[in-house]
Amino acid sequence: MSTIINFNPGPSILPSAVLKQAQDEFLNYRNCGYSIIEASHRGAEFEELIQRAEANIRALMRLPKEYAVLFLQGGASLQFAMIPMNLSLPHRRVDYVETGAWSERAIEEATLLGGDVHIAASSKDRSFTHIPAFDRWTVRPDSSYLHITSNNTIYGTQFHSFPRPPVGVPLIADMSSDFMSREIEAAAFGLIYAGAQKNLGPSGVTVVIMDKRLADRVPANVATMLNYKTHIKAASLYNTPPTFAIYIIALVTQQIIETGGIPAMERRNDEKAALLYATIDGSGGYYRCPAEPTSRSKMNVCIRLSSEPLEAKFLKEAQSAGMVGLKGHRSVGGIRASIYNAMPLSGVQFLAEFMNEFRRKNG
Amino acid sequence: MSTIINFNPGPSILPSAVLKQAQDEFLNYRNCGYSIIEASHRGAEFEELIQRAEANIRALMRLPKEYAVLFLQGGASLQFAMIPMNLSLPHRRVDYVETGAWSERAIEEATLLGGDVHIAASSKDRSFTHIPAFDRWTVRPDSSYLHITSNNTIYGTQFHSFPRPPVGVPLIADMSSDFMSREIEAAAFGLIYAGAQKNLGPSGVTVVIMDKRLADRVPANVATMLNYKTHIKAASLYNTPPTFAIYIIALVTQQIIETGGIPAMERRNDEKAALLYATIDGSGGYYRCPAEPTSRSKMNVCIRLSSEPLEAKFLKEAQSAGMVGLKGHRSVGGIRASIYNAMPLSGVQFLAEFMNEFRRKNG
Repeated sequence: MSTIINFNPGPSILPSAVLKQAQDEFLNYRNCGYSIIEASHRGAEFEELIQRAEANIRALMRLPKEYAVLFLQGGASLQFAMIPMNLSLPHRRVDYVETGAWSERAIEEATLLGGDVHIAASSKDRSFTHIPAFDRWTVRPDSSYLHITSNNTIYGTQFHSFPRPPVGVPLIADMSSDFMSREIEAAAFGLIYAGAQKNLGPSGVTVVIMDKRLADRVPANVATMLNYKTHIKAASLYNTPPTFAIYIIALVTQQIIETGGIPAMERRNDEKAALLYATIDGSGGYYRCPAEPTSRSKMNVCIRLSSEPLEAKFLKEAQSAGMVGLKGHRSVGGIRASIYNAMPLSGVQFLAEFMNEFRRKNG
Repeated sequence: MSTIINFNPGPSILPSAVLKQAQDEFLNYRNCGYSIIEASHRGAEFEELIQRAEANIRALMRLPKEYAVLFLQGGASLQFAMIPMNLSLPHRRVDYVETGAWSERAIEEATLLGGDVHIAASSKDRSFTHIPAFDRWTVRPDSSYLHITSNNTIYGTQFHSFPRPPVGVPLIADMSSDFMSREIEAAAFGLIYAGAQKNLGPSGVTVVIMDKRLADRVPANVATMLNYKTHIKAASLYNTPPTFAIYIIALVTQQIIETGGIPAMERRNDEKAALLYATIDGSGGYYRCPAEPTSRSKMNVCIRLSSEPLEAKFLKEAQSAGMVGLKGHRSVGGIRASIYNAMPLSGVQFLAEFMNEFRRKNG
């Protein structure tokens, strides 16, 4: 391996033991005589893998039986379209909460597709630095669903609890950047989706977890590949799925099980985030976090210094010290440390020490 | 490696040198310190790869400048929907040629999405055992496009030349199972698409080659991720693409360039197919090929014996001899040897010798 620490926002760091195993068996998967990427999606090797990936997710998230676990393509961006296409009621009323750039894309897509879109809450007026307090949300009681983005990679904010929409309005969450990073009550959601490339595996596969009863709503004229019913019925094998990405998900989820499940993962993530925020807060204002304290993300820690040249110096020296991917999103600038599930505490400790040292030298 | 010969119909065999390279650099891609599956899609490493993959395809296929090369998700199955959504003219007339199960799916999808679908030719009445002669096709001169499936994996038939539709009607071809297996004149097509998992790489990425001028037709209300214009404008980086699959495509196409390009690939494919068909035709009727001689596929060679129990015996002994994936598609039965680009001549020779030996023992 190497001494590089990968803070990329996604695709991002994966568990080193998983990568090592994937490399070891890459040419000859379990002695079948060929690579897993050469295996038929209808063959015994891959069928075992996709079933294991699903079973692992079910067990780790304690999913109710009536929930489906789907492995789809197209990322969160395709879900932005599939959700209104599939789950809008005939009146087309759909409610969204606007907490960052990805929420905005979801809203734009629902609007493009002819939805009667209502913004039930927004933090846009304060530059997306917080999650709006639930008691001021204006969710319509007859809305088709309420859509939220549980973690905002660009602005570094995160929901730390979840709203209860009016009875009968399913809660839908884009969890692309904090999926399986903490315990959640899955039954409180109608549908959860996540591009795999942050906490779960390589890019190219999207996990969708949904209450199968919602599929009763799907209009008959939805394209086959965009229809959740197609994938529920075929158990994600309607057409050739992204087999290698699903294989890695099977390995990653297996490792989560073997290292204490989601509760242990959440404790590790809490510890990592606490260390970085303590480093910021203990810097006497040298480092600042744009996100408001109660809304801070445990996955993407945004950090600002007093000037852009100083931030550029920080990034350059961090790179020289072996840390990559720390540059903030191009739309906001600054520094961002993405510390997903696979980032070890030691990586965060290294960054925290670097931050302290940089402050001493450049204070 | 191993002595297994992989005749899987897709996902399928890949070049062993490519797999070896991918394994070698899997943990540390070009000394960047992390795996290519952990690399940002906006980073220098991946940008070089996706540009190389595109440049290789452009060079190998000698694409005209006004053609775009896109790396999309969802397989051919999603293209079945995107094509009518994007390229239907306002009158919604679309023409299809029906030469097998995948053509049928494309036709069903265009119908579902409200197209005025005309079957310009069909071989369904003869169990899809041939490609209908062009002079009997009834393509409507004002159709939005004419759609064909260049190779039919299940029935083992293939177009050996291509029709010239009426002036102004773009020819669209699903080349999933014979993409880059032979020289074609790309400029004769308005759009070509191919799931990668036969000749090009792992599953999870679809290559679309299209005349960019066709994108002028796209209606404004097409979902962003389903709109070809989105991906043309963003050079396939609108959202996170399937990075690992594109990396493998870059390696596979590089290898094709280094081994003589498409003309050399075509010669090798011709030789492999000729050997198998000669083995069938020289068996005195012991082996039969359901496809008519002039329509036989050079990618998927379908073989029948005199009875199903004898076919079962053949498959069982072939498996014991180290050959996997030879079972015909479940809808038709029999034996099928998928001999895509990456299948070496030695693999086909081994199968031909096995066939001769089996015939001697069970004749």
